[in-house]
Amino acid sequence: MADRPVKELGGKTPLEAARKPSFNRIAKTGISGIIDVISPGTPPGSDTATLSLLGYDALKVYSGRGPLEAIGSGVKVLPGDIAFRCNFGTVDKNLVILDRRAGRIATEDAAKLAESLQKIALPKSLGVEFLIRSTVQHRAALLIRGSNLSTAVSDSDPEKTGVKVEAIKPLDGSSAAKRTAKVLNQLLDEFHNVLDKHPVNKERVKRKLPPANVVLCRGAGTIPSVKPLSEIYGIDAVCVGATALIKGVCKVAGMRLVEVKGATGTPQTDYIAKAKATVKALKEADFVLLHVKAPDVASHDGNAKLKMEVIEKIDGMLGYLLENVDLDSTHLAVTADHTTSIVTKHHEGDPVPVAITGPYVRCDSVVEFGERACAEGGLNRIRGMDLMPILMNLIGKTKKFGA
Amino acid sequence: MADRPVKELGGKTPLEAARKPSFNRIAKTGISGIIDVISPGTPPGSDTATLSLLGYDALKVYSGRGPLEAIGSGVKVLPGDIAFRCNFGTVDKNLVILDRRAGRIATEDAAKLAESLQKIALPKSLGVEFLIRSTVQHRAALLIRGSNLSTAVSDSDPEKTGVKVEAIKPLDGSSAAKRTAKVLNQLLDEFHNVLDKHPVNKERVKRKLPPANVVLCRGAGTIPSVKPLSEIYGIDAVCVGATALIKGVCKVAGMRLVEVKGATGTPQTDYIAKAKATVKALKEADFVLLHVKAPDVASHDGNAKLKMEVIEKIDGMLGYLLENVDLDSTHLAVTADHTTSIVTKHHEGDPVPVAITGPYVRCDSVVEFGERACAEGGLNRIRGMDLMPILMNLIGKTKKFGA
Repeated sequence: MADRPVKELGGKTPLEAARKPSFNRIAKTGISGIIDVISPGTPPGSDTATLSLLGYDALKVYSGRGPLEAIGSGVKVLPGDIAFRCNFGTVDKNLVILDRRAGRIATEDAAKLAESLQKIALPKSLGVEFLIRSTVQHRAALLIRGSNLSTAVSDSDPEKTGVKVEAIKPLDGSSAAKRTAKVLNQLLDEFHNVLDKHPVNKERVKRKLPPANVVLCRGAGTIPSVKPLSEIYGIDAVCVGATALIKGVCKVAGMRLVEVKGATGTPQTDYIAKAKATVKALKEADFVLLHVKAPDVASHDGNAKLKMEVIEKIDGMLGYLLENVDLDSTHLAVTADHTTSIVTKHHEGDPVPVAITGPYVRCDSVVEFGERACAEGGLNRIRGMDLMPILMNLIGKTKKFGA
Repeated sequence: MADRPVKELGGKTPLEAARKPSFNRIAKTGISGIIDVISPGTPPGSDTATLSLLGYDALKVYSGRGPLEAIGSGVKVLPGDIAFRCNFGTVDKNLVILDRRAGRIATEDAAKLAESLQKIALPKSLGVEFLIRSTVQHRAALLIRGSNLSTAVSDSDPEKTGVKVEAIKPLDGSSAAKRTAKVLNQLLDEFHNVLDKHPVNKERVKRKLPPANVVLCRGAGTIPSVKPLSEIYGIDAVCVGATALIKGVCKVAGMRLVEVKGATGTPQTDYIAKAKATVKALKEADFVLLHVKAPDVASHDGNAKLKMEVIEKIDGMLGYLLENVDLDSTHLAVTADHTTSIVTKHHEGDPVPVAITGPYVRCDSVVEFGERACAEGGLNRIRGMDLMPILMNLIGKTKKFGA
């Protein structure tokens, strides 16, 4: 949601230019500030940003997006499993990549392919199991489980077309990295063999569609080994989110996931349905994270107008919350997980605004929610991982250090 | 001294609502900011807070209140000694606690009991010595000294009445923890036997007073292993404080303790006597920590009016300092060691205000000393352990890092 000043908005950011009475009400009745989600100048990923905003030290616990997205897609990832983000892609006979998304293959077709791949039997002597699950369209999760495995391996996905699929290489001298690379190269070879002859792909070729004849892997990682929020703060925590990645991070934090009909992770998501789910969840839970992906989507498209529209819809969502939660016993905090520039279309390391309203908050003189207005607020400049302890302190859930 | 906005003061904090011309003069002529004494959102203890404000990393060096209070009470605590905070309490025949403070037994009576307990002879083969000293009323310090001892043991004090005294348990699997628990349980048993038959207690029972027939222990710890301030900054540092805990922390930091007649650690303390002692100490010392416990006492009682009165008395004390120190060669910094809410009556993790005046300070536009006014100051938001280097830099006592 956060951005940089842009010329086409008269030097304002999309958030500053948007009509946002509910955002402003939170700033006006609360305390504001800016957050370096990871550290000053560091552009956060969506995964590390959410880990930080939930109070974890992402620089220490994060080891890759793969396992988080896998667990968020409903794949059961255990500590120690090496997980990857995968695409079904299209290669020619020489393994040169023609399409990294196999023409954005339909979710149902990809599911059939993954089902066939899962039937491959690895030699028992190897002591390694694997699990492959397709998620949405060309996207899939792959994980391998066994002793002496490592995340220190390269990607097979070169992230561009016109070049060959890369062999996975060990990234350090450990026997675990060597073994992991070997197992994966063998497995991906077998995947290619099965996919090449698969009826779904034969049918696709007939229909002049690119066959999904390769699995491209990237982002080896394990799930972060962190204490759940319930253990750290003694709270019941809930996530109202749509994207697999955010759900994965929240699951790792031990949060309950609430599925919301109409929540899509796109600008067309059902904002009010998410607000309603949040109000409902707050009746039981101590803490609810309501995440909206839409502004990031608009930013990556470089669409300032769409970004403003999306922010105004989020403002409507906040309006619903302000009307329907008991503000005498509830704190509301609004922030962004990162700055995404509609000019560069990338995540940027500029800090994000934050505002917190609720009982006994040291209300400051900020009256508008925006990147620059919040920088003058009473919270000053904090780190992403500081936000959660600050919120938990307000609801009496932090433990005294010392006596 | 710091607090949250409260309804009965029209949304102001007690500090904001108090009349405080001298506090305000320091803010107006100086630079202000807010301090996360331990870390954002973490409620500090009085011990960890003072360690931090003296520049130490409390999260690394702190291991419990017991040894700090013991050393502050005049007990000679050596590195490695395991020290506890103790109460003389009252139990029935089944060791069920009737009164955790033995009717707030008189200091003189408790001293006689401690003297008798100190005569107990532990078997030499045990290789453990102990030291027990009564301090004020029911309070006492106990330490054990010997090889293979550990702080990883539980409390015998359940911190409530109507339940049995707890056996001390090892908190990890180490032989040291097991041995420490065993030695302590044996010692506390012997204490109980001696106290049960003690003439002081027989006399108390006759006078219908609860006998002090048990010693309740909590907060096992060792003294923090830190460099004294004299070594870090090359300064002569003095503490003007009344409570054993603050004196203990200052002693650990190598500071000289000044005893002030009339300084009690209560709202009735002699504020001007403490100011006079500070002015006197400043004639020789480079740094004087003047600590007033009173606002915390008022907060724990939930008494907003008393808290304001106490703050106004502290303001008078600051007025004396402003009149009587040479402001051309002296820096004055005012802050609080933590936020204590008069609503929750607990230490809270909200930041505390700070203001520093003196030669060459980058005076900012803040004109009032308060939680919110200072948040707009030129120091911005700092950590507790940063304050001391900032002060030492102003008086030319920090060392260059690099060349």
